[in-house]
Amino acid sequence: MRTDGREADQMRPIHIQTAVSKHAEGSCLIQCGDTHVLCTASIEERVPPWLRNTRRGWITAEYGMLPRSTGDRSRREAAAGKQGGRTQEIQRLIGRALRSITDLNILGERQIILDCDVLQADGGTRTTAITGAYIALHHACGLLVKTRAISRTPLTSFVAAVSCGIHQGQPLLDLNYQEDSTAAVDANFVLTEKGGIVEIQTTAEDKPFLENQFTAMLELARKGIDQLITAQRDACALD
Amino acid sequence: MRTDGREADQMRPIHIQTAVSKHAEGSCLIQCGDTHVLCTASIEERVPPWLRNTRRGWITAEYGMLPRSTGDRSRREAAAGKQGGRTQEIQRLIGRALRSITDLNILGERQIILDCDVLQADGGTRTTAITGAYIALHHACGLLVKTRAISRTPLTSFVAAVSCGIHQGQPLLDLNYQEDSTAAVDANFVLTEKGGIVEIQTTAEDKPFLENQFTAMLELARKGIDQLITAQRDACALD
Amino acid sequence: MRTDGREADQMRPIHIQTAVSKHAEGSCLIQCGDTHVLCTASIEERVPPWLRNTRRGWITAEYGMLPRSTGDRSRREAAAGKQGGRTQEIQRLIGRALRSITDLNILGERQIILDCDVLQADGGTRTTAITGAYIALHHACGLLVKTRAISRTPLTSFVAAVSCGIHQGQPLLDLNYQEDSTAAVDANFVLTEKGGIVEIQTTAEDKPFLENQFTAMLELARKGIDQLITAQRDACALD
Amino acid sequence: MRTDGREADQMRPIHIQTAVSKHAEGSCLIQCGDTHVLCTASIEERVPPWLRNTRRGWITAEYGMLPRSTGDRSRREAAAGKQGGRTQEIQRLIGRALRSITDLNILGERQIILDCDVLQADGGTRTTAITGAYIALHHACGLLVKTRAISRTPLTSFVAAVSCGIHQGQPLLDLNYQEDSTAAVDANFVLTEKGGIVEIQTTAEDKPFLENQFTAMLELARKGIDQLITAQRDACALD
Amino acid sequence: MRTDGREADQMRPIHIQTAVSKHAEGSCLIQCGDTHVLCTASIEERVPPWLRNTRRGWITAEYGMLPRSTGDRSRREAAAGKQGGRTQEIQRLIGRALRSITDLNILGERQIILDCDVLQADGGTRTTAITGAYIALHHACGLLVKTRAISRTPLTSFVAAVSCGIHQGQPLLDLNYQEDSTAAVDANFVLTEKGGIVEIQTTAEDKPFLENQFTAMLELARKGIDQLITAQRDACALD
Amino acid sequence: MRTDGREADQMRPIHIQTAVSKHAEGSCLIQCGDTHVLCTASIEERVPPWLRNTRRGWITAEYGMLPRSTGDRSRREAAAGKQGGRTQEIQRLIGRALRSITDLNILGERQIILDCDVLQADGGTRTTAITGAYIALHHACGLLVKTRAISRTPLTSFVAAVSCGIHQGQPLLDLNYQEDSTAAVDANFVLTEKGGIVEIQTTAEDKPFLENQFTAMLELARKGIDQLITAQRDACALD
Repeated sequence: MRTDGREADQMRPIHIQTAVSKHAEGSCLIQCGDTHVLCTASIEERVPPWLRNTRRGWITAEYGMLPRSTGDRSRREAAAGKQGGRTQEIQRLIGRALRSITDLNILGERQIILDCDVLQADGGTRTTAITGAYIALHHACGLLVKTRAISRTPLTSFVAAVSCGIHQGQPLLDLNYQEDSTAAVDANFVLTEKGGIVEIQTTAEDKPFLENQFTAMLELARKGIDQLITAQRDACALD
Repeated sequence: MRTDGREADQMRPIHIQTAVSKHAEGSCLIQCGDTHVLCTASIEERVPPWLRNTRRGWITAEYGMLPRSTGDRSRREAAAGKQGGRTQEIQRLIGRALRSITDLNILGERQIILDCDVLQADGGTRTTAITGAYIALHHACGLLVKTRAISRTPLTSFVAAVSCGIHQGQPLLDLNYQEDSTAAVDANFVLTEKGGIVEIQTTAEDKPFLENQFTAMLELARKGIDQLITAQRDACALD
Repeated sequence: MRTDGREADQMRPIHIQTAVSKHAEGSCLIQCGDTHVLCTASIEERVPPWLRNTRRGWITAEYGMLPRSTGDRSRREAAAGKQGGRTQEIQRLIGRALRSITDLNILGERQIILDCDVLQADGGTRTTAITGAYIALHHACGLLVKTRAISRTPLTSFVAAVSCGIHQGQPLLDLNYQEDSTAAVDANFVLTEKGGIVEIQTTAEDKPFLENQFTAMLELARKGIDQLITAQRDACALD
Repeated sequence: MRTDGREADQMRPIHIQTAVSKHAEGSCLIQCGDTHVLCTASIEERVPPWLRNTRRGWITAEYGMLPRSTGDRSRREAAAGKQGGRTQEIQRLIGRALRSITDLNILGERQIILDCDVLQADGGTRTTAITGAYIALHHACGLLVKTRAISRTPLTSFVAAVSCGIHQGQPLLDLNYQEDSTAAVDANFVLTEKGGIVEIQTTAEDKPFLENQFTAMLELARKGIDQLITAQRDACALD
Repeated sequence: MRTDGREADQMRPIHIQTAVSKHAEGSCLIQCGDTHVLCTASIEERVPPWLRNTRRGWITAEYGMLPRSTGDRSRREAAAGKQGGRTQEIQRLIGRALRSITDLNILGERQIILDCDVLQADGGTRTTAITGAYIALHHACGLLVKTRAISRTPLTSFVAAVSCGIHQGQPLLDLNYQEDSTAAVDANFVLTEKGGIVEIQTTAEDKPFLENQFTAMLELARKGIDQLITAQRDACALD
Repeated sequence: MRTDGREADQMRPIHIQTAVSKHAEGSCLIQCGDTHVLCTASIEERVPPWLRNTRRGWITAEYGMLPRSTGDRSRREAAAGKQGGRTQEIQRLIGRALRSITDLNILGERQIILDCDVLQADGGTRTTAITGAYIALHHACGLLVKTRAISRTPLTSFVAAVSCGIHQGQPLLDLNYQEDSTAAVDANFVLTEKGGIVEIQTTAEDKPFLENQFTAMLELARKGIDQLITAQRDACALD
């Protein structure tokens, strides 16, 4: 039994509220247990320099944590004068994940920026950000279709992400902060609705692990992703 | 009649939700119309260098806007590598406002950091941040009293803030973004429950204004502050 | 009686020397007591991006203090790698003040940059900077008229600034550093020759103050501004 | 057949030259085909703040590319004023990889910094850096044992890294730059001599991939790692 | 005949005004023709970390140019966020020059910071800064002796600096900006009253030059330095 | 006798390996004793803004030290967030030295960037960088001629650099680190094959020196430069 009473293969409760921003072309507030991430999609009618005049678009992401989203207050990155390595790693991950299910030719020569800001953190902020960013992106693409800026959606699949870990020898799904900080292995999976693998990042914090442990975590992840994509479908249908 | 149907001396609807953060010692989400600010208070048991061994405490504030809190997406300050002049000006203002109603000797040698993050902006973010920061500070001080870290509250008064402006010759209370961006004069008032003045910042965006216009705005501000302090009282009583 | 023997409503001696720079299109060295500020106006035949092709011009300001302009040496901002919040706040204030009395359409699509560098500080550097910047701007605009770059001056009024404060309960005009650092209330007024208000910034350093105290300070400020504008007129006539 | 004539499961030639630095406590120049990385290990008798007085040590890594290590010259990060996201991601990866096979209690309260500088790049710089960093670390630990600073080596295993990819549907081992930039999937594996998994990073650049493709790449990686560890053994025996 | 009517071996007029700062322990405004530099010496009772507990002191220098000290306005380094290479080169030069004639053991464990700020530039700002910094340093050391902080002056000699150049084949002394920007060779000499060489920096801007040209410039420099040291003596006697 | 057994006028062994980079248009690894510098020349078909449409080219240089090229590890400048004053001073020197022997009109509107990265340091890194940079530049210019981008070489002379010093009263050629750090005078000479002087930088670290000491160092430098240019000729003939 886990500290919060869940089974090893049980996700935390998922709540998604869409259209939370008056200004953004797509937005949601996603809550996975006590991890809360505000995701917005902003459409810009210009692309990075290397894509100019290619008729192709771009998806990029930025990630941030409010200073007191964490147990101890963290220093504001704007005050520190730079984004840390962890932040940059995460926003690169979010961008890659969303680009993998977007046909950039259909999107056309425009950019969608996904801002994922953690209002409250309790483990799994990067995976929650990916799952929520998909929804914001979905709504923004829906708007582009609705306003006839593009003829059909550039999205080729749902995509979601979840973390797994090995805790006292046992594979666990969807770690909270306490579990995450004591887990021997930390794994993040980004998978599509059809079971395709978009990204796997597995790290032994302490000592190497075995292939069968890896396989067990992948299996748990598939289970969690199914639930997340169901929640995404509901949130996208609301529009 | 104003574009959103309000009278000249009418505030936008005020909603305050307290204890919105699992981690912070005090917190609220304050909404003045479509301006939404998340305020947290973090207690740290250390003070800036110049206060060490003085038995006096410190209150400081940080302010940020989520990139898509605005109509057009703004560049993330953490990505830009520095906080802009406007941000620094605002967070200095918030800090001064809250220190003016805090007895730093009673607070003792500790620091309370007030983080005010704008989730959605529609004019008046700095005044809304001050009004909300007071509530987060109030709860944090309540916790210090409750845990007997200090014997009584260091807060000497409620304090709130509101903006006024001159729009087409007429003084208006609590400008929204559209009004603010076309107003000839922009004024921010920070006042206490007893009518004391904490800070006045009045700026002619375009051409100089007259003393009687100033007096009219101050009168409007007193009216608005009364309503804000009533809402603060309710939010503080909830604890 | 004040520490330097002045009456409550008495300004420090004002000295203004114009055309102190071989290179700048307008310049002065202004001394208000022991506060000395070197002000230059530089005309650039290009405007910020948002004004391109609008036929409108721009006025902006930069402010700096030499490291040993102060009693204790301050760190050089260029060495620190950024301009502090106070510096940014002041240069934004100077820019707004001068724009308020400039018709940017008459100025035409060019920019005037006002550099205000404090050679020696003894309180009131930001207000002295505004008063001096006006003179540098006046000369630069005169040059534009003389060289027929523009048909008439874009300046619509003189503008000057002065500080006031409440010291031991008494309103004082034109605080020096010692008075400023112990005053309960600190106020800066930017006024035009016709008595128009351009900017008011009033701050209670310690505890809230009353409206009649505010009014008393405004009255003192009007008196000081009259003398400053007289000195400006003399300095501008010299050209 | 690959563009450089290799089989799908064939590594590029591996050359390792040790003790290439007069100053460093451990060093090597590792060449995997045309990718050349200079690795040094520097022992410092102090640890990061959070480890002080814990009797535990730390391993950290820094990574850099010489500006013309690449086909087109890249901007020098020191001139740009910051390390990019890719650099930070890589040096975090190298640090984790080496810590996973080090007993930090045996190392004692000291830090070993692994500098991995790419002199010439042709794909696989991060994996080559890990493989080379191990050798530099091995020599530095050997020196600590030899000088009796510690009683036995803190290293619990050899560790090496290799990249794989899916290129035109076929899994390939040890991609060069040309292959890497056109591969559909990019995977990096960090494995120990005993087959333990330290880190897996797999990314679909373009579209999701399947689990059996993943398994095929892991198998190739095991084959490559065997050869790399054999080369490491030889290089470590030379000391 | 030179453009300003001087002979090849003729200095520009030298004016030195001392005690120009109310706050600094030593100061002067030095004018060599139209080059004006404000120099202050600040005594701090602490030294850089590497000198702590050595009973030795330190002399360091900082250099800056006001934005409109030059013909075209230069960007403010504080706004640019860093000191340029030229600035750093110059302030390192000033510091070395002054340390070379200071006995740091006699100075004792304290630091003197020399700030040299160019108010107006017309060539030779770095050499003028050195000549002026000596005077500020002299007064600061005099103050230390007078207040019995040290028993005797740590200064072992006067030191001054001057520039020379080769212009249309002819060696010239003390170049102004116009000459400097068209000279084929640019040389800076830092010499003591006794003729000792402290620093020589000679650069061929365009093509290599000959040893006899170098010797001719050194001879000119000695002549100019004699006049500068005479002016320094007068300025130091004034105290 | 010197600590490494050399005569006062004896250079350290010089080894030059050319074409060490697969990518760069010119490159060498130059070793002067234990000082090892990797030099690359990168041709870019664009010039800095101020040279656009002038048909003239540009030569610039960048310099860096690997963190553990030194006895104690130095902080990586990319991690520190800026290039230090010493680095900037050196790369400006290298650029000037190479431009002095290049006809920028013949080079045409393109830029050659010389990257000099110190792999191992033992004194004289800046002079070794200049000597090596010449070779990389020579090969790059040869390539431009060979590919008929330009009709003939823009290089007008060989150029090399060497350091000298006064150590215990005796002039020494080509100081190693130990000698350099204890020398009373430190001098760097950049000379051409025909004996022309490109740059002289002489600094008294401790106390002023005499003209005859300067002359003795210049004579030693001429001797060393002869050997360096002989080595350059051999390295350039290899191409």
